[in-house]
Formats: sequence, C-alpha cells, structure tokens
Amino acid sequence: MDLLQKGWFTEFSPDDLEAIKNEVSGTKQLKSDNVELGGAWPGQAFSLQIEKVLFHEKSKYQDVLVFKSRTYGNVLVLDGIIQCTERDEFSYQEMLTHLPMFAHPNPKKVLIVGGGDGGILREVLKHEVVEQVTMCEIDEMVIEVSKKYLPNMAAQFLHPKLNLVIGDGFKFLAEHKGEYDVIITDSSDPIGPAESLFGKSYYALLNDVLRDGGILSSQAESYWLHLDLISHMIGFTKSIFPTVQYASSPVSTYPSGVMGYLIAAKEARDVSIPARELSDDECEKMGLRYYNSQLHRAAFVLPTFVKKALSVATKLPK
Amino acid sequence: MDLLQKGWFTEFSPDDLEAIKNEVSGTKQLKSDNVELGGAWPGQAFSLQIEKVLFHEKSKYQDVLVFKSRTYGNVLVLDGIIQCTERDEFSYQEMLTHLPMFAHPNPKKVLIVGGGDGGILREVLKHEVVEQVTMCEIDEMVIEVSKKYLPNMAAQFLHPKLNLVIGDGFKFLAEHKGEYDVIITDSSDPIGPAESLFGKSYYALLNDVLRDGGILSSQAESYWLHLDLISHMIGFTKSIFPTVQYASSPVSTYPSGVMGYLIAAKEARDVSIPARELSDDECEKMGLRYYNSQLHRAAFVLPTFVKKALSVATKLPK
Repeated sequence: MDLLQKGWFTEFSPDDLEAIKNEVSGTKQLKSDNVELGGAWPGQAFSLQIEKVLFHEKSKYQDVLVFKSRTYGNVLVLDGIIQCTERDEFSYQEMLTHLPMFAHPNPKKVLIVGGGDGGILREVLKHEVVEQVTMCEIDEMVIEVSKKYLPNMAAQFLHPKLNLVIGDGFKFLAEHKGEYDVIITDSSDPIGPAESLFGKSYYALLNDVLRDGGILSSQAESYWLHLDLISHMIGFTKSIFPTVQYASSPVSTYPSGVMGYLIAAKEARDVSIPARELSDDECEKMGLRYYNSQLHRAAFVLPTFVKKALSVATKLPK
Repeated sequence: MDLLQKGWFTEFSPDDLEAIKNEVSGTKQLKSDNVELGGAWPGQAFSLQIEKVLFHEKSKYQDVLVFKSRTYGNVLVLDGIIQCTERDEFSYQEMLTHLPMFAHPNPKKVLIVGGGDGGILREVLKHEVVEQVTMCEIDEMVIEVSKKYLPNMAAQFLHPKLNLVIGDGFKFLAEHKGEYDVIITDSSDPIGPAESLFGKSYYALLNDVLRDGGILSSQAESYWLHLDLISHMIGFTKSIFPTVQYASSPVSTYPSGVMGYLIAAKEARDVSIPARELSDDECEKMGLRYYNSQLHRAAFVLPTFVKKALSVATKLPK
C-alpha cells in the first residue's frame, strides 16, 4: 500500500484508491457510480498500525488480507476494506444478529447469507431455541482464513446445528422458499461480490424464503455516508414487507464509525420491541458484550436528519 | 504533515505523532502518560482530503489550522486534532448543549467554558427561555478564525444575550459562585490547554457555580477508546453531585466515531428524561438536525460493556 509510512494500513474509499493508483491528483478524480451505490466514502481514510501481515492472497472473488494490528487485534480486510477487527467486532455482530433474533418470539430455523468470518454464526448459536442454522458463504477462503486468524469469531464452524453451504446466496435462496424464521445478510459493501445483495430482487426473494412471521436483518450502511442509498433501500423494501425499520450502532473501525441495520418482517409489527426480554444476568450468561434489551429499543431511535430523510422514503410509490 | 501523499491531512494520536516526528519506528514507542489521561488513541489515524489550507498559525496556546476539505466542508484543527467539520459538527454541538438544556425545566443563565468555534453558543440561543449566556474561552484566535471560516458555527457572537469573556475558565468560575442554571464544558482533549478541565477540582468548582437544581454537561470522550478515563471521571463526580449520568452520540470525524457526554445535576433526578418535550414541529422550528426528545432518552442507553465498566466506577470510594 505504501501510501502512508511503512507499517500502517490505510483504508481509502474504493474510488479514491482507484484514483490514487492511477495517479489522478487532488480533487480531480470523478465520482464513480459506486458513490451512488453506497460503496464509497470519498475524501476520507482510516489507518491502523500494522504489527505483522498474517495472510495476503487473492481468492476467486476478492483480495483477502489479515494483519495483526498494534491496538485492534487481528484485522480482516477484503478488497482493501476493513471487515472486522477483534477489538470492536462485537458491536456489529451482536446488533445485526440479535435485533432480528430477539424481535422474533421463536426463531428455530435461521439462515445467514455471507458471514464468512463466523461472527454472526457465533451469535445466532447463543439462542438455545435455534434448531438449525444454515450459512451460505460464497468465498471459502474467508472461512478458512477466519478459522486460523480470527478464532474467537470463527469459533462455531464445527457446531452440530450448522449446515454450511459454500455458494451463491441468490441461488440458494431460490431453492429454499418458506423455510426460515430469521435471515441475516452479513455482506460486504455493494461493490464486488455483494453488489446484488442490495437490490430489490434480492429482497423479493428473501420475502419468499421467510416463513410466516419471519424477520430479516441486513447490513445497511452508515447514515453519515449513505443516506440516499438507505432511503432507496427502505423505499423498495416497504413495497415488499409490511414492516421495515432501520437501526444503527457505533462500530469504531467502519467508515464514519456507524453501521446501520435494515430490519423487515413479514407481518405488521414493531420490531424495535424485543419479543423476548433479557435480564442483566441473562445477558451475562449469553456472553453479550454490546446488546441488551434497552439498547434494542434505543438502536431504532434515529437522529432528526435521518428520521426526516427516511420518512420521505416511505412516501415513495409502492 | 507530509506523512500521507500530498493533499491529505492525517490526524494521528498525539503520542504516535510525537513518535513519528522522532522517527521511532513501528511499535517501539512508549505509551505516554496521556494514554491514561484519555488524550491518545495509539495505533490508529484518520485522514481527510484537503482542497485548500485556509489558515495556519500558532496562537498563545496552541497550533490553529483550518482547511477546506474535499467532502467535509471546512475543518478546524487544534494541535493536530480535528475539533469540528462543517459536515458533522451538529451531532456534537446539539447533544452537548440540549441534553442539559432540555433536562433543565427553566435554564435562564447559561455558562459555556471553551466553545470558541461558537457552535454551542448557537445551540444555547435556540432556547428562548435563556436570558443570558456567558462564554469563557481562553484562546481568542479560535473565535476569530471561526468567525471567518466557520460562519455557520460562529453565527451568534454579536447576540445581545451574549457575555463574552476571553480568559481562563478556572479563574472565571472561582469568581462566579451560585450563578448558573446550566454549565457546558466544550473543551478539547485532556492534553494542552484543556487538561485541568478533566480533574476533580474543576468539578468541585462547577458544583459551587451552579445554582440549586443546576445541570452541567462536559465533553467526556469515547467509550471505545477511554473507558478507564470515563469510569474515573464518573467515580469522582459521583462524590460531588447527587446525579451523574453518561450519554453518547456518533460524531463521524472524532476518533472512533463516538463522543460521550457527562451530565451531572445538583439534585437527585433522572437527567435522561427531558423536562421539556419537543414535537417534530418544534424540532423543525428550532433548526435541530440531530437532537429530538426520543433521542435524548436513547443517548443514555449504553452498550453492555460500557454499562458494566461504569457501574464498577460507582463503587469507587467516595
């Protein structure tokens, strides 16, 4: 990468990285289509100090890098974008998982699309009510690398309730209609392998694959950076699901420090209210470091500028 | 700065910047005392692309830099640390101001310690109930530079309700006991001019300066980075005030993307409940972009790991 002094990894926005590689200087680079798609955050960059590069290879789908950082533990990077660090991954993994899981009264069959690092799987299996969890990840290298270098995330790949599928999420969904209580889409940004997971046809498919009363959650970007994309996604999901709500949580190493979660349900209900409440003791017993029942509700309370932008989206033609 | 390619400003942790300047390589630099004080975030850095440097001089107290960024508007930097950007300043300014202001039923006299960019002043004056607001800022250059380059923040320096004092906050407080309903400490990090504003003697003084029923808020760092400092501050403020609570909000350009707020009151009460509720229309009329009454409550709901760390702090000897 060699853009910062030796010993630092810098995450640029994909369009800026392209421009830098091509030696386009200053502010002359053009906005790429990806900016509108939500996969870019031009003009800003985040860096972590490297202690040691542990793994760096190209898989069939993407560039896979793992390094040991000085202060954030091991870090997984796909196509130049930080996916998780050992220090703060639990905010993302717990919120993306437990918002739909606790909004559901009885989630027995769960599907994870993506999630190769194993963090979401770890969280899903904390729910004893779960009978089977299927994970459909396209890139086997991410799983293998995570088993080796992110053992706390990839801790449950041998669990007897796990049905692991290496393959394309879209294809898998088309063959499993009406099967799942909860579907969690743990994808990278809408550039590269995950691009199709941000479109309307994907959500139409999810609707078919959920059982009655089913709930889904998806990685849905940061309101600081991608409010237009979020509004757009909420607009088209509302034409498919009777319930669509948006939550967020701070994740310090994601661009802008916030991650958003789109939560939709096949029936009309308020998913900001947990169907199952946890006491402090139960939180402790489940090993929850971020999630609690009060935070479940609070995560859906949005800043005024976000509320306004998303309420406009609800008025989109259905 | 020249550490990133030309045209980017990089905010390093002060101890890392020191180490880089001294060409200490890799992970060999020693943790400075400042790490424990909360003014450091080693091993990580944040960069913004520069369109133009607008101002760069040393004041009596600190290095003052303003640049026009490519995607965050104008940016104020003190001693190498980003203080605010035009794009996301409203989260910090509104939450630090309106949490204590709306927790108070009738805040007539308000004191701002620091706040030279004028953003807190702008927010305080949105409350018509305010009769007088005193601002005590030590560094006049920050005010002058903000008037010129951050006009949306520094919009109210000519307001008739303003009593502007250029001087040391500590000295001012000692001469104004029992005068204020709300005191807002809008300081930089606990390194340099603001260091004394994070200690117990400062809070003892604030207690004397508040009227009965008075409420204070202070910039109180990020729980991702400085949980020890926050626990420590909550520990000693609890020995002074009957009510001490902690809130937070995402601010995308602060280290880790989160800022915390310490809210204390001279009487036993729950400051997470606004004494004055706002409708959506009233929010709009006041020009609030971040704050709303639901968010007031939600800002005090903490992640499990933060709740645990801070509940330990309450057990510190009084």
